[in-house]
Amino acid sequence: MTVKQLSLPELTEACLGLGVPGIGLWREPVQAYGVERAAKLVREAGLTVTTLCRGGFLTATDADEWTRALDDNRAAVVEAATLGTDTLVLVSGGLPPGSRDLPGARERIADALGILAPYAQEHGVRLAIEPLHPMFAADRCAVSTLTQALDIAERFPAEQVGVVVDTYHIWWDDQAPAAVARAGAGGRIHSFQLADWVTPLPAGVLNGRGQLGDGAIDLRAWREQVDAAGYTGPIEVELFNDALWARDGVEVLSETAMRYVRHTV
Amino acid sequence: MTVKQLSLPELTEACLGLGVPGIGLWREPVQAYGVERAAKLVREAGLTVTTLCRGGFLTATDADEWTRALDDNRAAVVEAATLGTDTLVLVSGGLPPGSRDLPGARERIADALGILAPYAQEHGVRLAIEPLHPMFAADRCAVSTLTQALDIAERFPAEQVGVVVDTYHIWWDDQAPAAVARAGAGGRIHSFQLADWVTPLPAGVLNGRGQLGDGAIDLRAWREQVDAAGYTGPIEVELFNDALWARDGVEVLSETAMRYVRHTV
Repeated sequence: MTVKQLSLPELTEACLGLGVPGIGLWREPVQAYGVERAAKLVREAGLTVTTLCRGGFLTATDADEWTRALDDNRAAVVEAATLGTDTLVLVSGGLPPGSRDLPGARERIADALGILAPYAQEHGVRLAIEPLHPMFAADRCAVSTLTQALDIAERFPAEQVGVVVDTYHIWWDDQAPAAVARAGAGGRIHSFQLADWVTPLPAGVLNGRGQLGDGAIDLRAWREQVDAAGYTGPIEVELFNDALWARDGVEVLSETAMRYVRHTV
Repeated sequence: MTVKQLSLPELTEACLGLGVPGIGLWREPVQAYGVERAAKLVREAGLTVTTLCRGGFLTATDADEWTRALDDNRAAVVEAATLGTDTLVLVSGGLPPGSRDLPGARERIADALGILAPYAQEHGVRLAIEPLHPMFAADRCAVSTLTQALDIAERFPAEQVGVVVDTYHIWWDDQAPAAVARAGAGGRIHSFQLADWVTPLPAGVLNGRGQLGDGAIDLRAWREQVDAAGYTGPIEVELFNDALWARDGVEVLSETAMRYVRHTV
């Protein structure tokens, strides 16, 4: 998503040129290109697919919608397996229209995981609950903290359900460092993502993530904490940013790689 | 602030007409009108000043700025005492320019309270730390949860420092109900404020608070929790909302009073 202006072949080529060893993919561009074809492209380039984004949206109270959501998540699991990644990232879903019941939404997420997690494991895929910043609690994700995400994940085996540590969503939380350690000790850090926090936020607040180093987050400190928690997996940079998307994609990818080295290594 | 389009005399008259028994005031309009004069106006109308907003911004690393902030807060304490309210609300301040040290900012807030709290008590004023929604952590308030606010407040006597419970800022937090109970048990709920959560958020996210009943927050449940915690003080409605400010102020005040009754009583 950081460089969604690039086609999959352009992205693959640019990663190879920069020495970026893996890429996190999103379902929509993969589906548009063809899942098998995308898998072949990335595999033949020698790149790793680090994660597939995203499943989730598991909070519907309407029975048909709930069934459709489960079916869609099963499809996402199969896509992840086809792409050769072991991790499907979940954005769990917010409040159904008219609802004010956040605890109820969180329970439906857990209920859905009880159905989906064994299915995913059969396909060699782990589900990764991504807590989203509390500003998304109503409309996108009722799971707002890493502690909450772990509370749900720990109802299941670590091989089935873990969490995403994304600096953008958790940087403000004084309890997140302890949650990172807890997640690491349990083998539940299934993905580690970086983005910086910049203000003012844009309308809708979705596409205001900052380039690494431009904002308020001590990225190196978070990297060190995740390291100390025993995480040795890939580190993704995920920037939703209209200004970055308006620029040349290869240039943005190159800048991002340099920022990554400068601010986290 | 809910009806900042009204002058202080208009506001006072409208409150009397609706049977609203008290008003929370902001420093800027009070200063523009004259603090003594505002105090007299409200007192003679028989209204209570529930709180004064706001002191705070206590996170400067620059020594001169820090001194100026303390002086400004002492002035706010005197203004609160003059207005006859016992509560000064604090918006604690975010990160200083270029800083990425949130824990450091929180410690400076606590340091400042150590100086200001006894001064406030001498003037019959309690300081109320308002945790702001985590989306304001960088630029407005490094205190993002009620638990954090309490952790700081509890370093001081309850007569000196307490917290503000504002539904808009804490509604997403699964740990906030326990913090409400803890704050109540300690006699530290110094203010209770209502606003609803509506999406999409506007650019800058400051002026997007929803009219009561328009959004995602179960306001009655929060009111019941604050009641159960033993709070018997005034309840304020604080809506920063460009659309409400563009309308007739008396109409907005009347609507707000009706919404208050409908959604919380």
